[in-house]
Amino acid sequence: MDQEPGFIAAVEEAKLGYAEGGVPIGAALVSKDGQILGRGHNMRVQKGQPGSAEMSALENSGRLPASAYEGATMYTTLSPCDMCTGACLLYKVKRVVIGENKNFLGGEELLKSRGKDVIVVDNQECKDLMEKFMKEKPELWNEDIAV
Amino acid sequence: MDQEPGFIAAVEEAKLGYAEGGVPIGAALVSKDGQILGRGHNMRVQKGQPGSAEMSALENSGRLPASAYEGATMYTTLSPCDMCTGACLLYKVKRVVIGENKNFLGGEELLKSRGKDVIVVDNQECKDLMEKFMKEKPELWNEDIAV
Repeated sequence: MDQEPGFIAAVEEAKLGYAEGGVPIGAALVSKDGQILGRGHNMRVQKGQPGSAEMSALENSGRLPASAYEGATMYTTLSPCDMCTGACLLYKVKRVVIGENKNFLGGEELLKSRGKDVIVVDNQECKDLMEKFMKEKPELWNEDIAV
Repeated sequence: MDQEPGFIAAVEEAKLGYAEGGVPIGAALVSKDGQILGRGHNMRVQKGQPGSAEMSALENSGRLPASAYEGATMYTTLSPCDMCTGACLLYKVKRVVIGENKNFLGGEELLKSRGKDVIVVDNQECKDLMEKFMKEKPELWNEDIAV
């Protein structure tokens, strides 16, 4: 699973976010035929506003008809927060592939209850990057999840 | 309720969105002491990407600490979609004031189940504007909610 292009793109995005001094969470939205529709990372620091990774991937995919989301997969390096969970529900992606949920557990149960396939990869690289960030910038992380 | 500054701002935003040829849904985030932290409208057409009203209001409020959302109210002209429902949950607003839910019913039950005060104003102006838009541009509305 973590060799799929969408997952690799999500991890690249997370690293890019870290390099920019931001919250290192990345995501990629991939169509059922394997095309990356959009990819992005958390933009809170970079844009000075709320901007989660999955939201960035959706935004970067532009305006799409409902058919584009049919059978699509959202790859994300971290368990999706409530907002990104809702975005996955609204845009009716079929599958959500999650790098890890040890550092944060989001709306996985809600996704499952609404018929999404939720797959947690438990990827070591994702865990290490997020843990490192949370130790380095705990205030920024708390700000991002409003605690 | 529909005389509160936040609600008036949300309706103004919806009209602005309509005037721009976009999806006429507006929102405003107001702190517990009555300050408008951010306001905005659906930006799908204007930005060429997903961008619901509540998301725009949150984005336009910039980077805020968790304390800013304590006791805050999200005003929106239309019942919030799954994504905006999730955004209200993530940012822990206390109250969600909704112009109408006749033209679209979103995540009101989920908001209530997570302890939010949900108030539906059933405002005629909101209903008329949304109904007019849905008749004029049904494809755009379907695109916005991915159906």
